[in-house]
Amino acid sequence: MNKLNKRYIIQCCYKGTNYCGWQIQPNAATVQETISKGLTHILRSEINLQGAGRTDTGVHATFYVAHFDYNSTIKDPGKLTDRLNRYLPQDIRIDLISEVDSEFHSRFDAVSRSYRYIISLKKNPFNLDTAYHLYRSFNISEMNKCCTILKKHKDFTSFCKLHADNKTNDCTIYNAEWIIDRDELIFNITADRFLRNMVRAIVGTMLDVGREKLSAEQFERIILQKNRCKAGFSVPAHGLFLSDIQYREPVNSILIR
Amino acid sequence: MNKLNKRYIIQCCYKGTNYCGWQIQPNAATVQETISKGLTHILRSEINLQGAGRTDTGVHATFYVAHFDYNSTIKDPGKLTDRLNRYLPQDIRIDLISEVDSEFHSRFDAVSRSYRYIISLKKNPFNLDTAYHLYRSFNISEMNKCCTILKKHKDFTSFCKLHADNKTNDCTIYNAEWIIDRDELIFNITADRFLRNMVRAIVGTMLDVGREKLSAEQFERIILQKNRCKAGFSVPAHGLFLSDIQYREPVNSILIR
Repeated sequence: MNKLNKRYIIQCCYKGTNYCGWQIQPNAATVQETISKGLTHILRSEINLQGAGRTDTGVHATFYVAHFDYNSTIKDPGKLTDRLNRYLPQDIRIDLISEVDSEFHSRFDAVSRSYRYIISLKKNPFNLDTAYHLYRSFNISEMNKCCTILKKHKDFTSFCKLHADNKTNDCTIYNAEWIIDRDELIFNITADRFLRNMVRAIVGTMLDVGREKLSAEQFERIILQKNRCKAGFSVPAHGLFLSDIQYREPVNSILIR
Repeated sequence: MNKLNKRYIIQCCYKGTNYCGWQIQPNAATVQETISKGLTHILRSEINLQGAGRTDTGVHATFYVAHFDYNSTIKDPGKLTDRLNRYLPQDIRIDLISEVDSEFHSRFDAVSRSYRYIISLKKNPFNLDTAYHLYRSFNISEMNKCCTILKKHKDFTSFCKLHADNKTNDCTIYNAEWIIDRDELIFNITADRFLRNMVRAIVGTMLDVGREKLSAEQFERIILQKNRCKAGFSVPAHGLFLSDIQYREPVNSILIR
């Protein structure tokens, strides 16, 4: 028997509330394990999903990409997507399964990742799981000055979880912006890579600027100090969404946005 | 001491997931009791809220109106609103407290009520508590024919909970319409009054029409038969929202829409 080894890309989204993040770990429900088990069950073959990166406990993803190998051809990936969606719990949706080049890697081939952080400025009974509630005003123009500063720097040690074991703490921020949408204050950020806890530490520190407890100049000084203890608090996970991952063509344009 | 008796209107919204509806009842969390207790605590006086009507267990309200009497003048109703919002759980928001004419009654003075029912046509991890999930196609033009039929009739006994004890089952339907918004199928209905379970029974029966298990003509025959056993199933509570209540002036225009 000729043993094929085909590689498949999978795009999904999930509400992170009931998961200890993406990455598989003992004695905890994770998205990686849940989808891997679903595929293993349906394909009757041990499947190990490889994801584009970790997300922390409680963080959501409106856009997530992973890949897996399977020793046979999936003739109708659309049908498998439907079967997997029926099998999986309601808080995970599979958007796409498609064969890709066997060299494709969801993590190493990612060109950029985007995150969104949502703050609800008004009490709202309907977004409690998906926004951080803070009922006060912020100086958004000062917070957007910090966004401009972010784009000028590379080393974000100050916003990295302590004891994280990275070769480098350099990141290139392509875009960062605060916008107001009705009663929500929304932060969008795109970079080539993110350090652990980075978005939540950046948002927490920027909120101190928005509250005028810290100036934009002090924000820049915190970056330059390269010391996590200098930064502000980390905002809670439930306001954070992984919202996009960009790849090179031909993969990028098969993804659904 | 001169005992005043002032009447106040209160506008609020709530996510119904954790409540056994609006109406107070023994050994169950209800919205009426929760807000009444909050007002009693803050005003240090026994407050009994009277609402515009019942909502069933699990039903949400983006717009709800009630009233209460208090033997003193509330000097700053905006401040009381803020204090009450801080005191109440996150799934209830108070939008307005305002003095009204002492004859005003939130239930008897309501001119019309509007409900919305939301069906998610696509798996969506982010609206599980606030939409009924049904992944299939519906014949919406036939369902909208049923809306036209609804407006021609008055007696909705066929869509009323059995053994409900009403003097009359007559309702005047001012508006009824199905619309598609992205992956959601939404039903909006406005009437002078609604019978118990009426919206959910109407929606369930219309879905049978949308599935082409029932024709619009058969839907009309069900209304004419005035027999609840002839109607379709009742759709679940978590897709239903009380969305508006209209009053005469001057009350109507102080409400926030």
